[in-house]
This record gives sequence, structure tokens and C-alpha cells, in this order.
Amino acid sequence: MPLQFASRLDNVETSAIRELFKLLGKPGIISFAGGFPDSAMFDVEGLREASQKALAEEPGGALQYGATEGYDPLRTQLAAFEQAKGVKDLGPQDLIVTTGSQQALDLLGKTLVSPGDKVIVEGPTFLATIQCFRLYGADLVSAPIDADGVQVDRLEALIAEHKPKFVYLIPTFGNPSGALLSLERRRRILELAVKYQVLIVEDDPYGDLYFTAAPPPPSLLALSDQVPGSREWLAHCGSMSKVLSPGLRVGWLVARPELLAKATMCKQFSDAHTSTFAQATAAQYLRSGRMPATLDHVRKVYAARALAMGQALQRELGDAVAFTQPQGGLFFWARLTGAGGAVRDAGEFAKKAIEQGVAFVPGAPFFAQQPDHSSFRLSFATADVGRIEEGMGRLGQAVRAAR
Amino acid sequence: MPLQFASRLDNVETSAIRELFKLLGKPGIISFAGGFPDSAMFDVEGLREASQKALAEEPGGALQYGATEGYDPLRTQLAAFEQAKGVKDLGPQDLIVTTGSQQALDLLGKTLVSPGDKVIVEGPTFLATIQCFRLYGADLVSAPIDADGVQVDRLEALIAEHKPKFVYLIPTFGNPSGALLSLERRRRILELAVKYQVLIVEDDPYGDLYFTAAPPPPSLLALSDQVPGSREWLAHCGSMSKVLSPGLRVGWLVARPELLAKATMCKQFSDAHTSTFAQATAAQYLRSGRMPATLDHVRKVYAARALAMGQALQRELGDAVAFTQPQGGLFFWARLTGAGGAVRDAGEFAKKAIEQGVAFVPGAPFFAQQPDHSSFRLSFATADVGRIEEGMGRLGQAVRAAR
Repeated sequence: MPLQFASRLDNVETSAIRELFKLLGKPGIISFAGGFPDSAMFDVEGLREASQKALAEEPGGALQYGATEGYDPLRTQLAAFEQAKGVKDLGPQDLIVTTGSQQALDLLGKTLVSPGDKVIVEGPTFLATIQCFRLYGADLVSAPIDADGVQVDRLEALIAEHKPKFVYLIPTFGNPSGALLSLERRRRILELAVKYQVLIVEDDPYGDLYFTAAPPPPSLLALSDQVPGSREWLAHCGSMSKVLSPGLRVGWLVARPELLAKATMCKQFSDAHTSTFAQATAAQYLRSGRMPATLDHVRKVYAARALAMGQALQRELGDAVAFTQPQGGLFFWARLTGAGGAVRDAGEFAKKAIEQGVAFVPGAPFFAQQPDHSSFRLSFATADVGRIEEGMGRLGQAVRAAR
Repeated sequence: MPLQFASRLDNVETSAIRELFKLLGKPGIISFAGGFPDSAMFDVEGLREASQKALAEEPGGALQYGATEGYDPLRTQLAAFEQAKGVKDLGPQDLIVTTGSQQALDLLGKTLVSPGDKVIVEGPTFLATIQCFRLYGADLVSAPIDADGVQVDRLEALIAEHKPKFVYLIPTFGNPSGALLSLERRRRILELAVKYQVLIVEDDPYGDLYFTAAPPPPSLLALSDQVPGSREWLAHCGSMSKVLSPGLRVGWLVARPELLAKATMCKQFSDAHTSTFAQATAAQYLRSGRMPATLDHVRKVYAARALAMGQALQRELGDAVAFTQPQGGLFFWARLTGAGGAVRDAGEFAKKAIEQGVAFVPGAPFFAQQPDHSSFRLSFATADVGRIEEGMGRLGQAVRAAR
């Protein structure tokens, strides 16, 4: 006899992407479909030393139950990590450690969303965010973006119309868009938060992965001291996953005390606390001072791959695609133009591409509303420059095959 | 301006225990209030070696994103761990790894409970279970227990009356009760599962911590092959927390494929996956073959402490308390009898005890319904025999002071 599952599961559907991923097992395929960093980039030796030190210096702290809010030495290091990026007035008590930033999203959903509540997200946005919030009954509204990030006039109109529980943004090198929200728009969004008394959730896993000489505009969190009152209406999700190791599952959530307290209570009943072994390892790693060199290395490698992908994409696909060269992060976001009778539907294109031995993710599932079926996402993070050029060549063949 | 939180938060309240815990900072206090294992019992050297091996042998697997279902080598080890305890027909694909068994509870709530659904729990039961299920809107019904565990006749009547979404039990050395469900009642519960087509959730974090020469009766999971059809109506939560290290946050959930698939989907949006670093470390530890010796050691130490506590409790408090000597686990569950005009209210007694420099947890919050205000819980896990005797002496003084 079948079980009767909770009604909240009716709000989510099996991912279309999952179906595509089943095809990736095909031998010889070059995949740009993933959303993960290159494991060759992990500082294994640094993490080995950090984990040893954690066990040697405080075995009890690393192996016993810990505070739900997080391991204090890690909270201290994370506050310093944010301060180094220009965040003012932030202490260890202003953040809690989460089991990856995915859990920060889950706790925001659990803490804030009653069934039927409106939540505004970017169109497109992170797929697991869409599903996570929908599980709590959120009614998602999609705000359009361009190469400079979310369109603020449209966002303001949507806030005024829908009075959302919160607005979820990935302002810096968004997934899947790769877009970078301009400084001017960042300021305006903080002003909107204050004007409409609406919570803005800033998800920032990619902000450290910039390819330019100078860093991108400051995070909303770092900018918040320039817009009086905005800090109160801001929640910020950080992550070690893209810069150090996803396997540690160490993220963090910065928010006003009232919200942190409720999120902590919910976390207590979600997983008691994040692995203290992983937390103590991350704390030792940050304390070791190796992070800046690790980041420098990662930025250089990904920058070279992004450059190679942009050039090869242009060369091989020409006017069949339109895209903006990303200045950081892990992703290219492109649109099939249909020029000269070329393929316009990214789902159809993905099938042709698999036939040619190359994979990517069609863009439609990343939209909570009004999917753009001509869009698709390519990750440049895990293939080296040679594989990227080979893969873009195959993509060119797929375009020609689908003409 | 205050935030408006989700309506589900109205179902939980700040724990009364939390208020008491604030008093524990008083210098010189002997605490029996905790619910955690003794960190002096952790096999730090074995875990150090296991973590090193995990990083050396498969750094990518230990540090990269992993499958939501869990790290395959760990799933294999956990299936073998269960098989060694008499569970038949269980393969790696029949379980998923969770971030502690607390997350298994959270996923069961998220996957199965619609607001207003009935769930039957033991009275008393694990506090974080009560809150976890209530956050998903569960309407909890309490089934009475005695020294042999839940009273099966009463349980059957409650199942028939309430048609619950599931029944949650800690059959072996329950928290807080310490009770051990008899073999006969175990069989009857599996029969009830089949008869009423009702899911039984077996939470089993303490089953390995027995003090007798022979192990306790098999888990419901291990017994299920003796009751045709019962396996389908069983979910089993396991944990490394009490026997190896809580800081790893490694638990597991065994359930029928349909339920595991939904729980996996929910987990994807809760924390993506459990720390692969912690999972790879646990897998290497189990593979190293050190677990049986670790368990032997832990059992001996806790058995001596439990014995000392029982004797001292009897000697110091006499007929002012009634209790059953636990045969395993971490807890004594006792009741104030009020004999000779002694204190009957455990909350009042807890305050007197703190004044005398000793702490425990009053029992009332462990009841989802009809709290027994005369009950209280003592953990014997973290104090050595000398401290236990000293602490019971102080408890005797507290009884006399409250007379």
C-alpha cells in the first residue's frame, strides 16, 4: 500500500535537469552541466593540516556535540573573513554556522514562509532555492535580470504589488546568470529594503571568485552601513563551498538577532548543529592564513577557463548564441538567437549536444515563472582549457546538426 | 519593525529546559542534565587515522560535493553494521545518510506530516522529536510506557482511534525513559504495523550501549523478517553520535524505497548532503575494525556508572524516589514519590538541587500530553563514579532541604 506523503510535496516536481543528468554517464562526454568547483583546486594539504590541528588541540570540541549557533572559534574567523571584505560592525554573535549555505536557505524558508506567502526571486535563479522555498509553501514571483543583475525598477514594482515575505538575490556572479549587480543598483536595493520594510536575502557563494584585478562592488552586507536602516532588513548567506571545499558543508547566515534566534531554534530540530569536526577544521584553516593564496590560485585558473570558453563559444557558435562574458563565478549564461535558422530551443539543443558528446543545462528550469526556453547554462569550472575548446567545438557541431 | 515569522513557529515554544540550563554555569555544579556521551570515551586516535586515510585515499570524495543519498563506501559500511546486528536483506541502497539522526526525524516530518496530522509518540519521549514534528504541524498523541517500554494495548487503541501518520518509538533504552521494550511487545508492534497499515518509526541511537552480557532484544528492523509485511511499515533511524562521535553528525535512515526517495529529495533542499569529510572519516573508521573494541570499552564504563548511580540513588534518596535500573543507554528516569512528605514536584526539586550544587532535568517537558510533574531524568554518562556518588549525596541533601 502506498504511503500518503505530506501535502507540501505537491509543490515541487522532479527536476527536469535530473533526467538530463542520467545521460551524462555516456562515455567520453565533456560536461559543462555541473555546478561544482574543480576538486583539483582543493588545498588538500592545508585541510589535512587543519583537521589534524583541530583534533590535536581540542579533540572534545571537534568531536562532541556543539552549540547550535556554531563553533565559536569558527564564528570568530567567519566574522573576520567578512570584515576583511569591508563588512563593518559584525561580530561572531551576528552570524550562525549552517550546514552549507543550502541550510541557510532552508532555515529562512522554515522560519519565515507560511503557505501562500509571496517571495521574489530573480528570473533565472538557483534551482535548489526555488524548490526549497516552494516546499514551505512559498508562491514565487520572478523579477527579470539583465547583465547588470536584477532590474531595480521592475523589482520595486513587484515589491509594491506583492508585498513579499522577502526578496532573494544572488547579486554577485549569480547562478545561473553569472550576472554582476551594479553598485548603483546595490544601493537602490538597500534603499528599497528600508522604504518597503522588506527583507532582502543576499546569497553570496561566488563573490570571492572574481577575475578582474579589483574586486567586484561590495556585497549588500558590506554596503549596508552606507544606507541607514538597511542592515536590519538584510540577511546574508555565505559559503566555504566554492572557495575551500563543498564537502565540509560549512556556510553561514548573518541576520538581525530576532531572525537568527528563530533560525537557531529551527536548526536545533533540523540537525542539532553543523559537524563540529568540519567546523573546527574550517576554523583552523582560516586561522592558518592560507586562504588568500588559495583564493588567488582559484581565481587565476577559473579566469583562464572563462576567457577560453568565451572566445571558443564566439568562434564556434558565432551569432547562433548571445552571451555576456562573466567577470567571476562559475557560469556562462547564454541564449540561442535562432539566427540563420539555427536552433532556438535549449532543451532540443541539449539533446543534440549529448549526441555530439557535450553536455550543459537548459535554462528553463531556473525560472520560477515565465521560463526562457532559449537560455542555457555552461560551467567552465571543472574542465581545463583544452577540454573547454574541444567541448565548444562539439557544441558548434551540435548547432550545425540542429539547423 | 518586527519581522512576521512563519505560522508554523506558533506550534513550538522555548524549551523550559533551556531556562534551567542557564543556571548550569554556577561554579562547582555537578551536572546530570546533559544528554551527550562522555568525550573522554571518543577514540580520537582512531578517528585521526580514519580522517587522514580519507584525505589520502580519496581527497576528491572527501572534499567535493557528494550524492544526497550519502557517500557510497559509508552506506556499504552502515549496511554491514546493521547486518552484524541481525538485520537481514539490507543493502547500501536501502538507507540514506543523514546529518545526525536528528535530520532523519526532520526529513520524516517534512516528508510525511501535513498540518493537523496525528503522530503517536511515547510519553515521555525525546524533546527534540516533539518540537521537530510540531514544526511541521503534527498533532502529537502520547502513548504511556512502563519499564518494558510502550504499553501495546494502549498503543493499539490509540492507533485505532487516531489513525496517525506514523508512530514514533525509541524501543531500546529510550530517552528519557531508559526503558527497554520487551521482545514480546516488539513482535506485537510489528503486527500492529501490518494490521493497521501504519508506519512505525524506530529511533535507535542507544541500542549498542547495553550493560548486560547478552545484547538486548533485536531492533524492530532486525525482527521485521519474522513478521511478514512489517518491513514495509518500518522506518529505522541509526546514529554514530552516542557510540563514536556526535561531532561527525552521521546518522542514517532505513525505509522503503518510496519514502527514501522523497526523503532524499527533501534532503537535497535541506543541506544538499551530509559532510563528505565526516562521512569518509566514518567510513574509514568502520572499515578499520576498531568499532567493536570501542563499543566494548564504552559499554563497560557506562555500565559501571549506571550501577554506581543506582546504588547511590537508592542509598541517598531511599523511598523519596522510585526508578527502574536501566540496562543500557545514558539515562535514569525517576519519579518523586512524595513519601514521608518529601518533595513531589520535579521542577521545584530541580531548583533545590541547583542550590545544593547538582543539576538534572525535570521530566514534564518530555511529555507531548499529560506531563508527569513528579518525573525527572539523570544522565550517568559524563561524570565518573566518584562524581556520581558526590552528586547523589547532594541530591539527598536537596530532598531533605525540600521536605
